[in-house]
Amino acid sequence: MRVATVSTHDIRFPTSRELDGSDAMNPDPDYSAAYVVVTADDGSEGHGFTFTIGRGNEVCRAALDALAPLVIGADLSDLGGFSRRLTHDSQIRWLGPEKGVMHLAAAALINAAWDLASRTAGKPLWEFLSGKSPDEIVDLVDWRYLTDALTPNAARDLLTSAFAGRAERSQHIREIGYPAYTTSAGWLGYPDEKIDRLARQAVADGFRQIKLKVGADQTDDVRRFARARAAVGPGVRIAIDANQRWDVAEAIDWMTVLAPYDPWWIEEPTSPDDILGHAAIRQGLAKAAPDGGPIRVATGEHAANRIMFKQFLQAGAVDVVQLDACRVAGVNENIAILLLAAAYGTPVCPHAGGVGLCEAVQHLSFFDYVAVSGSLDDRIIEYVDHLHEHFTDPVVIERGAYRAPTAPGFSTRMRPESLVRYAYPEGAAWN
Amino acid sequence: MRVATVSTHDIRFPTSRELDGSDAMNPDPDYSAAYVVVTADDGSEGHGFTFTIGRGNEVCRAALDALAPLVIGADLSDLGGFSRRLTHDSQIRWLGPEKGVMHLAAAALINAAWDLASRTAGKPLWEFLSGKSPDEIVDLVDWRYLTDALTPNAARDLLTSAFAGRAERSQHIREIGYPAYTTSAGWLGYPDEKIDRLARQAVADGFRQIKLKVGADQTDDVRRFARARAAVGPGVRIAIDANQRWDVAEAIDWMTVLAPYDPWWIEEPTSPDDILGHAAIRQGLAKAAPDGGPIRVATGEHAANRIMFKQFLQAGAVDVVQLDACRVAGVNENIAILLLAAAYGTPVCPHAGGVGLCEAVQHLSFFDYVAVSGSLDDRIIEYVDHLHEHFTDPVVIERGAYRAPTAPGFSTRMRPESLVRYAYPEGAAWN
Repeated sequence: MRVATVSTHDIRFPTSRELDGSDAMNPDPDYSAAYVVVTADDGSEGHGFTFTIGRGNEVCRAALDALAPLVIGADLSDLGGFSRRLTHDSQIRWLGPEKGVMHLAAAALINAAWDLASRTAGKPLWEFLSGKSPDEIVDLVDWRYLTDALTPNAARDLLTSAFAGRAERSQHIREIGYPAYTTSAGWLGYPDEKIDRLARQAVADGFRQIKLKVGADQTDDVRRFARARAAVGPGVRIAIDANQRWDVAEAIDWMTVLAPYDPWWIEEPTSPDDILGHAAIRQGLAKAAPDGGPIRVATGEHAANRIMFKQFLQAGAVDVVQLDACRVAGVNENIAILLLAAAYGTPVCPHAGGVGLCEAVQHLSFFDYVAVSGSLDDRIIEYVDHLHEHFTDPVVIERGAYRAPTAPGFSTRMRPESLVRYAYPEGAAWN
Repeated sequence: MRVATVSTHDIRFPTSRELDGSDAMNPDPDYSAAYVVVTADDGSEGHGFTFTIGRGNEVCRAALDALAPLVIGADLSDLGGFSRRLTHDSQIRWLGPEKGVMHLAAAALINAAWDLASRTAGKPLWEFLSGKSPDEIVDLVDWRYLTDALTPNAARDLLTSAFAGRAERSQHIREIGYPAYTTSAGWLGYPDEKIDRLARQAVADGFRQIKLKVGADQTDDVRRFARARAAVGPGVRIAIDANQRWDVAEAIDWMTVLAPYDPWWIEEPTSPDDILGHAAIRQGLAKAAPDGGPIRVATGEHAANRIMFKQFLQAGAVDVVQLDACRVAGVNENIAILLLAAAYGTPVCPHAGGVGLCEAVQHLSFFDYVAVSGSLDDRIIEYVDHLHEHFTDPVVIERGAYRAPTAPGFSTRMRPESLVRYAYPEGAAWN
């Protein structure tokens, strides 16, 4: 089965009208998708996208159009090769390499190919991946630049040792679901009363962790965090997220002020490129929690590629790996990141939210539990209650957990009417 | 003076026909420019570009079109503010931040603004910058994420201590020119005899350093390096460039084989994102030279931004900082990188070549010598003898040195007839 056609779409939702998704760096996002449909020569379709927050989505679409000729005719039974076609093109590589707009577009195309392949197999992506042998999984990864931290052989050993328990874990995770936390309560643009109400509601809904946005104003942060802590009580974890707002010393100082409210982790305290900065912050917060333990450091939603994740782990710079389904080069590069994190014993708690990121990334965490790390310890997937209605197979959340996806594919397909209504700039939603 | 209009162009040269510019990762580049003309309300023009190697140049142009509305009306007397408009847009920032296609486009626009400002002032850019006070220079830099390595105050001190010698160094560099090395002899696609001939010619022309491309085949590398060393003799420095071809252990092993031919530096031994990998390679080569000293490690042409350069310096990962005029966000971010390098005492030897990179980057090195580092020790600018004829103020090389630019502006303006002939895909060169 080979790729016959590629079509691209610029889809945007006017979310800035409600301040949904507002944080210290992103005050007014219009959640958007550079969306791609890959059609095989037998007529079957795969849908994928990358997520943006508005302006520039058209540049990602232009990048998809630039990449499309590289995959016309590509063999959809070799998705390692498919992925490398997109990331190794000698001329396009200059524009990164493996970062920014071109890499976002590669993610969309690679994810569309996986949607197609898993649909064709009649399985949800996580099951499709979890049925592959350790050798097959190792072959999906681009090992270039990773071997000083993890070799293909070591990865194969890791996967092989997890092999025996796959069936049991698969059954277990279908029964209990994968733990979720909610960010819906804590957007920076929300008034205090709304945060109180949503935080209480989250606990009532079964969430054991919530997340607050911080970093714009310290006095506001203290007040909002104190209220949220009072609302949920001491037993619920509150993660906080600065969205890259601080320099290194500022991060440590600011977190020392917020420490009494017991943050579970601080997410994106500084530049997502600053590996050594995160390491310094993590060291500075190693004894900052109320019990004298660490405040954990989390990052990943803006980490450009597997080489950055490798270094975050090598440098001891993070406690929590927050991979994103659509920032790095799709399923293949995320498998590399899951393997690296497992090798370093660091939990993966994916970034989600936006448009369709929950739908996509859940598959990676289910696969991680079944076939890679084999652990749920301190693992949890972000959940944001926005825009799920636009997908044909939306996530199902029950009692604070993602239910195992059951529909074939990667859950990345938008409803046809949404693709029309939110097409930018011509769709009805933008008139 | 404010920005009135922005126009964009996709310019490509069919260089792949001659294997000019071929290396281990880039076998067939078509040197290209995403080119932009900024017009002020008084009708004056600034020209800038970013460099690519062919496919995807249209995506950079789309990025320029996406950024253009942000600078319409921008005050051209505040180029710090101009630069921040382009790198801090809350929605576009998601597409990086500060890397890849959007950052390449920001570089083109920022450089065009500097061309306009320095032309208006009637000075070549390097002189225009060298006439600014330490305070003015500090205000041009975006200090976010840098203060753990260098504070604005420390930068001001550094600039102030260099202030007294500016006039003398300016006079000196006009007399002797800035040292250059040539890469024109060593492209990977050239036959051995051509390398011999060009290497001898380079020495006859006054160059004291040349560069060879390596990394595709070790046997070929040994033969070509041995021939080049025989051609130039022991007194001429030969730098070698692997263009990101190796993993960490492979880089150390391969370099150990090439060490007997006395490489001055190894450039881009591995991924440009791999700070810790470069540090490991540098440590592995610390005693690898024939005299028991180090083989130097160089990188930078693909380093995405000032935060990556900061870490390369903090980690002791590089001996040579190879900034690029058009990869990071133009003049402003390169001033940050010059200041960081000076603070760490590491020489800056800019990447050049491609289309117009020599024309642009020479200004940064002249400025570095006059107003920042104040040193020429082990400083040298890359030179490649291609495509200069398309510029209105091409570089002048004499006896292996760049002559000080004298024409007002940033030397980034292409001849009008070249903009027409090499327009892609409609220009005559592509028919």
